[in-house]
Amino acid sequence: MSTEKASEPKVGVSGRKIVYDKDGKPCRTCNSLTDFQFATTGIKPAKAAAKKPVKDAYKDIPPDVEVIGKSSWTLLHSIAATYPETPDNKQQLDLKQFLKLFGNFYPCWYCGDDFKEYLGKNEPKVDTQDAFGRWLCDAHNEVNVKLGKPKFDCNLWKQRWKDGWEEKSL
Amino acid sequence: MSTEKASEPKVGVSGRKIVYDKDGKPCRTCNSLTDFQFATTGIKPAKAAAKKPVKDAYKDIPPDVEVIGKSSWTLLHSIAATYPETPDNKQQLDLKQFLKLFGNFYPCWYCGDDFKEYLGKNEPKVDTQDAFGRWLCDAHNEVNVKLGKPKFDCNLWKQRWKDGWEEKSL
Repeated sequence: MSTEKASEPKVGVSGRKIVYDKDGKPCRTCNSLTDFQFATTGIKPAKAAAKKPVKDAYKDIPPDVEVIGKSSWTLLHSIAATYPETPDNKQQLDLKQFLKLFGNFYPCWYCGDDFKEYLGKNEPKVDTQDAFGRWLCDAHNEVNVKLGKPKFDCNLWKQRWKDGWEEKSL
Repeated sequence: MSTEKASEPKVGVSGRKIVYDKDGKPCRTCNSLTDFQFATTGIKPAKAAAKKPVKDAYKDIPPDVEVIGKSSWTLLHSIAATYPETPDNKQQLDLKQFLKLFGNFYPCWYCGDDFKEYLGKNEPKVDTQDAFGRWLCDAHNEVNVKLGKPKFDCNLWKQRWKDGWEEKSL
């Protein structure tokens, strides 16, 4: 096992192509975790992860409010993690519009109403990636408090949702 | 254990309020699965589900392409499941706009590009809930094929994402 940096491998441990961002760094949100780790460290996992059995989609049931909530926060925080550091005016307006429509179409109507109320009282901060990531983390904390869950330290949003805990940025 | 229909219980097995839709039916996307089942059947689970341990959010790592993909399909199909049966003109335009912005902001850039390309070639069908549910199922199948996963029978999208397998509609 080598700990040398891989020099931009083309194919990952999974056999799929490694996807890079436009700046040449491996794209965290475009690769599986093991492929991303391989591309950034050159280390192959000691043992290939067991292949997950194919789930029978004809037995899956519609997601409940908790699954929908968790899925949606995953998507929104990942959007924050890939939102431009210095977005242009159109990107800022588009993101505000996306959040508004997100509240309108959210599958749990009372959750969507709460989100729209939060949006109305707390103008989304969309002028930088960090500002948006923190605004979203605050919005998530408001829901955490309502559900009796612990608040998250929003100073750490990038470690949790963008860069991981070991490396500050890749 | 009773199998009688509950008459609109106010509080669920979880201790939380049961949420109803505007038509008076229990809201599937607004309640936890056990609360929804209790509200629709009157049956309490034989044994309360074990309380999940609180996860340490400070150990969670950023989601990879597979987690983001699964989360996003969960959200989109659930949006289809709660989209109006007969949407007005504004709702139809808003949904198209939402899909476009979704493609723009999708955290995996090449997946987002693929989605936008699909949108360009396959105008979203947003004139009824069923039309949109099927359109989205077709879009998902296109990705399934690219990933070597089995296609899903889109005639069954409502059972999978809206009504469940036992009851056609609640």
